[in-house]
Amino acid sequence: MSVQAITWSPSGAVRVVDQRALPEALVQRDLETIEATAEAIRSLQVRGAPLIGIAAAMGMVAGLRDARSLPRAAFLERVTDAVGRLGATRPTAANLHWALRRMSDVARRTRGEVGEVWERLRAEATLIWEEDRAMCRSIGEAGLALLPDGANVLTHCNAGALATGGIGTALAPIYLAHEAGRRVHVFVDETRPVLQGARLTAWELTHAGVPCTLIADGVAASLMRAARVDLVLVGADRIAANGDFANKIGTYALAVLARHHGVPLYCCAPSSTIDPAVPDGDAIPIEERGADEVRMIAGRAIAPASVAAFNPAFDVTPARYVSGYLTDRGAVRPPFVA
Amino acid sequence: MSVQAITWSPSGAVRVVDQRALPEALVQRDLETIEATAEAIRSLQVRGAPLIGIAAAMGMVAGLRDARSLPRAAFLERVTDAVGRLGATRPTAANLHWALRRMSDVARRTRGEVGEVWERLRAEATLIWEEDRAMCRSIGEAGLALLPDGANVLTHCNAGALATGGIGTALAPIYLAHEAGRRVHVFVDETRPVLQGARLTAWELTHAGVPCTLIADGVAASLMRAARVDLVLVGADRIAANGDFANKIGTYALAVLARHHGVPLYCCAPSSTIDPAVPDGDAIPIEERGADEVRMIAGRAIAPASVAAFNPAFDVTPARYVSGYLTDRGAVRPPFVA
Repeated sequence: MSVQAITWSPSGAVRVVDQRALPEALVQRDLETIEATAEAIRSLQVRGAPLIGIAAAMGMVAGLRDARSLPRAAFLERVTDAVGRLGATRPTAANLHWALRRMSDVARRTRGEVGEVWERLRAEATLIWEEDRAMCRSIGEAGLALLPDGANVLTHCNAGALATGGIGTALAPIYLAHEAGRRVHVFVDETRPVLQGARLTAWELTHAGVPCTLIADGVAASLMRAARVDLVLVGADRIAANGDFANKIGTYALAVLARHHGVPLYCCAPSSTIDPAVPDGDAIPIEERGADEVRMIAGRAIAPASVAAFNPAFDVTPARYVSGYLTDRGAVRPPFVA
Repeated sequence: MSVQAITWSPSGAVRVVDQRALPEALVQRDLETIEATAEAIRSLQVRGAPLIGIAAAMGMVAGLRDARSLPRAAFLERVTDAVGRLGATRPTAANLHWALRRMSDVARRTRGEVGEVWERLRAEATLIWEEDRAMCRSIGEAGLALLPDGANVLTHCNAGALATGGIGTALAPIYLAHEAGRRVHVFVDETRPVLQGARLTAWELTHAGVPCTLIADGVAASLMRAARVDLVLVGADRIAANGDFANKIGTYALAVLARHHGVPLYCCAPSSTIDPAVPDGDAIPIEERGADEVRMIAGRAIAPASVAAFNPAFDVTPARYVSGYLTDRGAVRPPFVA
């Protein structure tokens, strides 16, 4: 069974797995306010493009519980404020803005009492989450045929249950193949600097009983050269109209290496990750994070404190390196239009 | 000024920088015995192909100080034992066996008192070290023309002063260019799992005042795509007769990426790294180290304790990806014969 990364708490807060604590501890936190939700996204307690969108929508609902008796104009002002604050947390993921736009549209379109508007927002946030669960399963089905018995898959970062409301994107075909009794083995890139592969993917696959082997990011090329990788499955944070996509730093290297060794690479994502308004990868904003994420691990210096570090969180993989896009609408191909 | 990684202590022990303590502390240790030297090499207190060879030779001398009054046969038995114990520490580096063979030959060839044989061994170990210093400088001179003012170099692992008896191999042209007043900037791959780039290369370049920027290993491909890397300089642990070479895990990925982006990659090494007895890369033994080197950092778990990890310390880069070999004999090209 894969882990459940997000749910409602009994009191209506957003209950999330604090992903900073994994793999040492499985800690759940209840996000009660907009600011707590924004901080959880900013600090990577909650991460993964689809999950960020779900968490923002649900966090808006939790944070507006105290606004249900406000006049309509004041309530809508709170909604606008929430969209601004949650939307400013991280720049690259498309799903965040997609989910906030849905919530904002519902608030504005719904007539009647503010209490009813809030109820409608809660229903919409729950729908975004449930749709994501269904999308994960559809992505899994779209990729299932690529994973025969005995397949060796390489994945990067975490595009699994911990990145979504369901069974993940890149890991969804793997979970379905495993459920179907096929022997599937996963090589997990540790994914420096934040180590989402080591901390999250290795943890959730182990938790679900899927055989996996952890590797340093520099090992993938040798495995491909030795023909030990049948295919590469990765997620996406934003897919441009022409098919270029942003994903965790290191994905572009894998794409070049996969192409060089004749290994297919598939980009797995819900439709909400596609941003037809962005023509190509050059137009995707790439988040640059602090140097200490590279200079330190677990609070300990691994490099001189004074050394400069360049820490882009994502890179862009041009569409020509992608063997296919596995989405909730099946295998699709660019151009992607609105 | 680059750091001095090895020297004789006043009492004749081998004084080394304990590289496990960097960058937090500059700790020197005196290796008094064969076993202490073997353990220092095994545990990566002392690492880097050329430095391992020097340390083994010097450690044999230090460890045989108490054997100077033995009969010749017993002394030679101790030499044989030392060669066996020091040679078994790490399998990939060519320089280790090359240095031990030199020492062994000297012991066997030298006539006279055992005390004189030991003196000859001490002179030979010092010569191995001094030759290495000179070789480093020659490698630097062989590469200097590749580094015009403003050059951006990418390097992997540590092939610097901390890997040799002198100013390094891959870093030697950089130090000479910097000395010559050219503005050279180095992108330093952190080099997981042991982080020699972050811990050692970033430290020694900073120590010497050479501008550098630390990156996670997954960043190099994006930098190459953005044309921010002019050339790649790496060291080698063993170079086969056909030019295939073993170096730190992740080097092969860089070589493929460099080729793909039209960036030249040079392999920098003293002649002692060339092993003409090994026909090609497939015949180079690749050390596989423990899983905890990947699963833990600084004593803290970064992955589930039960997850499997694959941890090859080196990979092989085929000769066709190499733009040139910079050695103490200048730029050379395969095939390499004895």
